[in-house]
Amino acid sequence: MSLLLLKRSLAKRLPNARGYTTANHTSTSTPNEKWKYVPQSGTYPKGFNVGGIHCGVKKDGKSLDLALVTSELPCSAAAVFTKNVFKAAPVLASREMLNARKGSGVRGLVANSGCANAVTGKGGMEDAIAMGRAVDTLVGEREASTVVMSTGVIGQRLPIQKILDGIPNAYKTMGTSHEAWLSTAKAICTTDTFPKLCSKSFKFPGSSTEYSIAGMAKGAGMIHPDMATLLGFMATDAPVSPDALQSILRHAVERSFNAISVDGDMSTNDTVALLANGAAGGETIRIGTEGEKALRAVVTGFAEELSKLVVRDGEGATKFVTVSVKDANSFEDAKQVASTIARSPLVKTALYGRDANWGRILCATGYSGVEGVVPEKTNVSFVPTDGSPELKLLVNGEPENVDEERASEILAMEDLEILVSLGTGKGGESAYYTCDFSHE
Amino acid sequence: MSLLLLKRSLAKRLPNARGYTTANHTSTSTPNEKWKYVPQSGTYPKGFNVGGIHCGVKKDGKSLDLALVTSELPCSAAAVFTKNVFKAAPVLASREMLNARKGSGVRGLVANSGCANAVTGKGGMEDAIAMGRAVDTLVGEREASTVVMSTGVIGQRLPIQKILDGIPNAYKTMGTSHEAWLSTAKAICTTDTFPKLCSKSFKFPGSSTEYSIAGMAKGAGMIHPDMATLLGFMATDAPVSPDALQSILRHAVERSFNAISVDGDMSTNDTVALLANGAAGGETIRIGTEGEKALRAVVTGFAEELSKLVVRDGEGATKFVTVSVKDANSFEDAKQVASTIARSPLVKTALYGRDANWGRILCATGYSGVEGVVPEKTNVSFVPTDGSPELKLLVNGEPENVDEERASEILAMEDLEILVSLGTGKGGESAYYTCDFSHE
Repeated sequence: MSLLLLKRSLAKRLPNARGYTTANHTSTSTPNEKWKYVPQSGTYPKGFNVGGIHCGVKKDGKSLDLALVTSELPCSAAAVFTKNVFKAAPVLASREMLNARKGSGVRGLVANSGCANAVTGKGGMEDAIAMGRAVDTLVGEREASTVVMSTGVIGQRLPIQKILDGIPNAYKTMGTSHEAWLSTAKAICTTDTFPKLCSKSFKFPGSSTEYSIAGMAKGAGMIHPDMATLLGFMATDAPVSPDALQSILRHAVERSFNAISVDGDMSTNDTVALLANGAAGGETIRIGTEGEKALRAVVTGFAEELSKLVVRDGEGATKFVTVSVKDANSFEDAKQVASTIARSPLVKTALYGRDANWGRILCATGYSGVEGVVPEKTNVSFVPTDGSPELKLLVNGEPENVDEERASEILAMEDLEILVSLGTGKGGESAYYTCDFSHE
Repeated sequence: MSLLLLKRSLAKRLPNARGYTTANHTSTSTPNEKWKYVPQSGTYPKGFNVGGIHCGVKKDGKSLDLALVTSELPCSAAAVFTKNVFKAAPVLASREMLNARKGSGVRGLVANSGCANAVTGKGGMEDAIAMGRAVDTLVGEREASTVVMSTGVIGQRLPIQKILDGIPNAYKTMGTSHEAWLSTAKAICTTDTFPKLCSKSFKFPGSSTEYSIAGMAKGAGMIHPDMATLLGFMATDAPVSPDALQSILRHAVERSFNAISVDGDMSTNDTVALLANGAAGGETIRIGTEGEKALRAVVTGFAEELSKLVVRDGEGATKFVTVSVKDANSFEDAKQVASTIARSPLVKTALYGRDANWGRILCATGYSGVEGVVPEKTNVSFVPTDGSPELKLLVNGEPENVDEERASEILAMEDLEILVSLGTGKGGESAYYTCDFSHE
């Protein structure tokens, strides 16, 4: 029998067992304090049609579970996939498609929530390919040209017929409105408490052409069964060559989706994709140009915004914490230290406990494995997010006499920055975003 | 002001703040279900005198906080220290002493709980050295010959005078009885709910000489402020050369204290020390001999026993989980996979949730970074600890139809084994011990 059925059965029998429950992504299920993160309008890239429907993967008979994106023009496409050895079928199928197409001529994306199509063997690969093919057929492509994503329970086959029946239905409902984008963002959610959707328009220096970028993400939960999957999707109407797009996405993901920690696990399905269809016109952005740098800055900032929403929706999270590491030997070293601090369970529980415990921050810094961490050069501060001065905790390895009133005020804030300066003189820096571990 | 005072002040002000509290290590504070892990008698090595008293580091005026061990004969001594860049003063002092003595002529150990003497600068080093010197004076040694350990709050100075006054008092109370050993084990506890003490006697093949080994450990907590420190101390009356002893301890610690996970952090104070005084007589065990192998097996098994007690006392832990990885390319690879599974927060929460979620186990296996993990060769089972057959979840990468009744039974047990076989044909294996993450 399937693991889903097993878990349901356990859920009935054992008081502590957690069955798979589908969050109800209606306006009433989003907690009040999270509403501010859900946009009421947006500026979306030209030439993309999107939509989300319920097709029946989720068992409640109503929650959106199938997302569809198509582009009127063939797109350049890039993706960053999980490094997990156990890659889910949609990851393998999408990677193969992108390799075959060399990142060009891509027409869209199909994603389902409720079932991850992971550890499903050959049959699972056939299902992933069939999902993509169903979209290709609708847009009139003979060769595979659709990115495929799945998120949800591991180890069970997709109800593929429901998805194949659902794709034409989703296709009919597609549109370009804010509501259509919001439905699409909702359709990739599993236990997320709010849809994660961002959009913005931008121009390049010295040009009057206005471009837009929009994107969505599906969060990773701390406690949820099988739900540690991160999906991200971004689309822009700027014209970009495939190699420039891949380079831009890799740079952006390193500083955003790969710089957040909810629980420190890496799933079988993690995928972030970026499509660029050029529908807004202008000269194609090529690798190694100023245009690439300019777009890279835009996409990186945008991906940061989107990935921070994932941290804000970490289960039980009450605090959003930026771990900034400065003056390391390199970006990579800074990121390694920031990541070690951000992922330390002891730091995360201390943050929830409002415990001004720089000892734990120091511990994590010290076991990060980075050369160039020298106790006598290390500085640690709490930086309040209201613009008031930082509170120094450790200066050149010596503990400060901490102003307790001030520590108490800063620690009570919803947003907080931990600043570690390694004093190497090299100036490498990185930021990592994390949430606290609270009581459930 | 000190961090301790800061935290106390915060604790008063903020309902969620966790102040530093000293567990009361009396018979009434140990939970009923943990009593079975506290021995009522023991077989202790000859020539060691031990004792534990309250000297005033802990503020409650009664909890034991100073542990003293002396040997009537000079010992061979070995130690394994934290790899954290931020090493506490007692770690630095002990390392220096052992280096200067080349691991011989060591006379004992002094340890305090309640204050870690970490991030305390030059003054902290002086305190650590003074602690050791106070013991040296009592046993009539001119050169440093005492291992020093501290555990407790980080970033504040020791109340060194209380400790220096306490050492002669502790010296007077020392003895060789089970009660003396138990007091010593209690004196190194901070928020542990029970003292961790083991002892046993052993013989080598073909010899009639009876040796003993005894030891204690201080656990690491998940949620406790500043308490992520692991201390371990073992003593035997077998005669061992210093280099053989260091080699034996390194081997044992890799398979015991360095193969357990409570929260995945590594503290500034972690230390495991082993003394051998040869008081039971017999030929000195030298490196590269059969005697070394025989003693290594004894010490490794003993250290495993002791370190498992630390896992059983992980805060909020309800389950003791052995993660066994078999048929890897090497011991190191097997340990890396086992460690990744054992430290995965998603695996640990699933275990508490009694969720037969091998997807999470697979995820962790897949991001362990070990080459030679091949999905199609991977096998995962739950192994019940009552001797009944294993429950296969994944066979050569294919999910099994799981017997839900059986999964439910196994997952309800307090002890559980997760068995992962990598199918490499090389036979490398390792075990890692962990607990679940429960609600607090």
